[in-house]
Amino acid sequence: MALARISRNWRRSPGINTNTNSSIIPFSSTSHSTSNAKTVSRILYLQSLTKADHMNFEGRGRGRHGIEGYRFGHAMRISETENFHYASLEPTKPGDKPRVVVLGTGWGACRFLKGIDTTIYDIVCISPRNHMVFTPLLASTCVGTLELRSVTEPVGRVQPALAKHPGSYFYLASCTDIDTKKHEVYCETDDNNHGLGYEPYRFKVAYDKLVIASGAEPLTFGIKGVKEHAHFLREVSHAQEIRKKLLLNLMVSENPGVSEEEKERMLHCVVIGGGPTGVEFSGELSDFIVRDVFQRYAHVKNYVRVTLIEANEILSSFDVGLRQYAMKHLTKYGVRLVRGVVKEVQPQKLILSDGSVVPYGLLVWSTGVGPSQFIKSLHLPKSPGGRIGVDEWLRVPSVEDVFALGDCAGFLEHTGRQVLPALAQVAEREGKFLVELFNKKIGKQNAGRAYSAKDIDLGDPFVYKHLGSMASVGRYKALVDLSQSKDAGGVSMAGFVSWLIWRSAYLTRVLSWRNRFYVAINWATTLVFGRDNTRI
Amino acid sequence: MALARISRNWRRSPGINTNTNSSIIPFSSTSHSTSNAKTVSRILYLQSLTKADHMNFEGRGRGRHGIEGYRFGHAMRISETENFHYASLEPTKPGDKPRVVVLGTGWGACRFLKGIDTTIYDIVCISPRNHMVFTPLLASTCVGTLELRSVTEPVGRVQPALAKHPGSYFYLASCTDIDTKKHEVYCETDDNNHGLGYEPYRFKVAYDKLVIASGAEPLTFGIKGVKEHAHFLREVSHAQEIRKKLLLNLMVSENPGVSEEEKERMLHCVVIGGGPTGVEFSGELSDFIVRDVFQRYAHVKNYVRVTLIEANEILSSFDVGLRQYAMKHLTKYGVRLVRGVVKEVQPQKLILSDGSVVPYGLLVWSTGVGPSQFIKSLHLPKSPGGRIGVDEWLRVPSVEDVFALGDCAGFLEHTGRQVLPALAQVAEREGKFLVELFNKKIGKQNAGRAYSAKDIDLGDPFVYKHLGSMASVGRYKALVDLSQSKDAGGVSMAGFVSWLIWRSAYLTRVLSWRNRFYVAINWATTLVFGRDNTRI
Repeated sequence: MALARISRNWRRSPGINTNTNSSIIPFSSTSHSTSNAKTVSRILYLQSLTKADHMNFEGRGRGRHGIEGYRFGHAMRISETENFHYASLEPTKPGDKPRVVVLGTGWGACRFLKGIDTTIYDIVCISPRNHMVFTPLLASTCVGTLELRSVTEPVGRVQPALAKHPGSYFYLASCTDIDTKKHEVYCETDDNNHGLGYEPYRFKVAYDKLVIASGAEPLTFGIKGVKEHAHFLREVSHAQEIRKKLLLNLMVSENPGVSEEEKERMLHCVVIGGGPTGVEFSGELSDFIVRDVFQRYAHVKNYVRVTLIEANEILSSFDVGLRQYAMKHLTKYGVRLVRGVVKEVQPQKLILSDGSVVPYGLLVWSTGVGPSQFIKSLHLPKSPGGRIGVDEWLRVPSVEDVFALGDCAGFLEHTGRQVLPALAQVAEREGKFLVELFNKKIGKQNAGRAYSAKDIDLGDPFVYKHLGSMASVGRYKALVDLSQSKDAGGVSMAGFVSWLIWRSAYLTRVLSWRNRFYVAINWATTLVFGRDNTRI
Repeated sequence: MALARISRNWRRSPGINTNTNSSIIPFSSTSHSTSNAKTVSRILYLQSLTKADHMNFEGRGRGRHGIEGYRFGHAMRISETENFHYASLEPTKPGDKPRVVVLGTGWGACRFLKGIDTTIYDIVCISPRNHMVFTPLLASTCVGTLELRSVTEPVGRVQPALAKHPGSYFYLASCTDIDTKKHEVYCETDDNNHGLGYEPYRFKVAYDKLVIASGAEPLTFGIKGVKEHAHFLREVSHAQEIRKKLLLNLMVSENPGVSEEEKERMLHCVVIGGGPTGVEFSGELSDFIVRDVFQRYAHVKNYVRVTLIEANEILSSFDVGLRQYAMKHLTKYGVRLVRGVVKEVQPQKLILSDGSVVPYGLLVWSTGVGPSQFIKSLHLPKSPGGRIGVDEWLRVPSVEDVFALGDCAGFLEHTGRQVLPALAQVAEREGKFLVELFNKKIGKQNAGRAYSAKDIDLGDPFVYKHLGSMASVGRYKALVDLSQSKDAGGVSMAGFVSWLIWRSAYLTRVLSWRNRFYVAINWATTLVFGRDNTRI
């Protein structure tokens, strides 16, 4: 709501006061002096936006690291001199290729970017990160089995046209709002929390077709303290923080005078959530402890423990035999499995709903994902669960030329289909479906331009067929479940062969040859030299 | 001065008030409530320390990222319950191995750690980072030619005893003061500015022998704005920041509505200082631009420029022919060489002493190093230039059992020797000399214990023989200068063969096989796939 209001105000502002229709809205929440007299009236006008915008910043999944202050940007001063010039990528003209705007660089977005025919379309991709993360291998990077750059793929490598074609661009920015009538998206660039002091810069981009694939956010169920004290495991920065924290705790616990109790707390790694991410991370941790901690942190090796807390059953989407295998295996290698519900998280301990207190040194939260603030703020139809509602062709009905896929999209109730799980597999398959739709249906029938695809034949609707699930549990063991659903029959296996399948399967799924090479090299060097424990 | 006062107060405190002699000094500059009534009096006592301690924090080379607030640590509460128990590593007892405390993890420290005989000594290494950086290759990591983990060596890999032997430790901490009479060093652990919220923790470590190798800090000559706006290039975090900033500027300059002038500013990389680091970084940048920017940032490729500003001559320590070669080569590949002196640095531009204004997007400062605040604060004899003064055996005279080497040490005037340049080569050779001294002289004569090496024969003094200098200038070209000094004759060469020598020499100098392997792999993949431009 707040978001929508901001952008409405913003778009209206040129009409109100032609002096202020700079495309870059300047506003100040912390600066103590206003260096430019011309901007004073604008500040008054804009002060009402400041609070709402903070909400917006919160909503984009920044977690606990806020942006500390906004200053008057140099960019603003430049556009001031260019009278009334909006920072915008204008609508395409007849003769131009139609422009497809893609929001996001996750599985769905990147599969779409990879396949889209750039001879038919110009592509603009907008995302706050310039890379895709190969999420199934992210847990391995937290302990140094793999390096981060081996599991990230720059978007320019996924779709080279973004870097080269004159009408195609990648913008490092967050989308803040969409005007489906005007066919425009509103964006804001910031320095992505790396503290480099880049000032926010706003612009808009007109689209012929829009593909929303901006993903989801970790669910915290409103539990107090989660955002402040727990680490999520969805982005590269999360994995970096976990790795730093883990190594910090291992080192600091060796300090002279640290009590036994404090050592135990610092070296207690707690994982909340027994889904594949939580289980794989626990498995990697136990691997790391057995192999590397015992050798390299011999002074404190006996204090390290891993606890996995889950409210229901671990790996609930897997076959019951595999679940039991996983539980037995994890327990054997020192992971304590606890059934419990977290009530509150405090800086160094968490409270379960039965009142028990669990001190921790590292807390990783992986209890699934839900719709982001951005998705919630959009005035679009919603699926059960609050995702953007789509029809069988992944179109957002009621508006034209808008598609949504991946974790941020779900089938509308009237389609009679279930909302698909938030899996890489689903997003990728949807991306592939949209590629076909765009290249073979919309593109071939000259319906790429805005408002021209209303009545064309889109062919067969999207059908999802689950190929199976995999999860590693550490110590060269993994689970492979090829049954199509929980109740249907199918092959399921666990053990070393499954682990080989798991590794081979992921190695072939890694997008680029460069990363395939590096993942293999990382695995080999981890085997030979152990994991790297440089804290950088 | 301030530093010395703090630790004197601190050490005296148990005598003043036995209630407060916790080893962890608690103090609060930002917390608004005091949760523990017992600590109130302590706060009053300690408030006088707060300001001085801030100076201390500043002094440890944190640059512009301060620590925002100190809170009462959990650790403090624990030691409070253990009456009057100092957090300390107590002096060694008869029967124990003598303990050598090493401050630092740079070239000198790591060469010493690598060679020291751990059957004779227990080793305690104290440093705010747990790794050594292979500094000559750091410039290559800023643009992605090499990965950071390929040029860093965890200290546990340099000397495995630190992780395994019962009496040997690595402490992730900064040394804040030394009591040479008591043979103790005072340390403080913090989270190394990674924002993970770790609270400072203080302890002391008794030594039998102390080796100070804590390095130096970048020189800013007191020029306004350097610390705030320029990037140094000495640590891993510096290289990370430069890489992030460079990629950010490349991406953000593509945004719609950014003016030509602003694009030129953002993509103007300015390097201050024409020493080997500045030249190698400029060369890497021009390589990156010619090869990668032209392919991957085609929209803005014509705006990227590199300027190298030097007050005197570039590579002044090299042979004049090599200097001319370097200048010609850099100019050919687009690096603008400017002779000038920086007067002031502002957020987006710098002012030269002749009044000219240079707008920049990235500013890298590499004008050499000088003594750190920590070194300045120590009450030890000083060499010309303010380093710790040592005699021909790298001993600090006037105190017993203290040695110093590397960038923080220099020959005392009365030795009649010149202070050696702040080079990796010098530090490493000094580390090697101390290894021999400790293993073959001090160790063999049972003089490892405190106060027992006063009259023993130390053998030949340290003599430095310069082996030559190398610097790459980009595009597969390098300089090799094997003359022993600027005036002496010797082999000097430049070009592709030199570049091969440069690469091979550094590859063999990299400490571990793991990193040797990774450096080779990085070089190979850069050649095949180009540099990685993921912004993580």
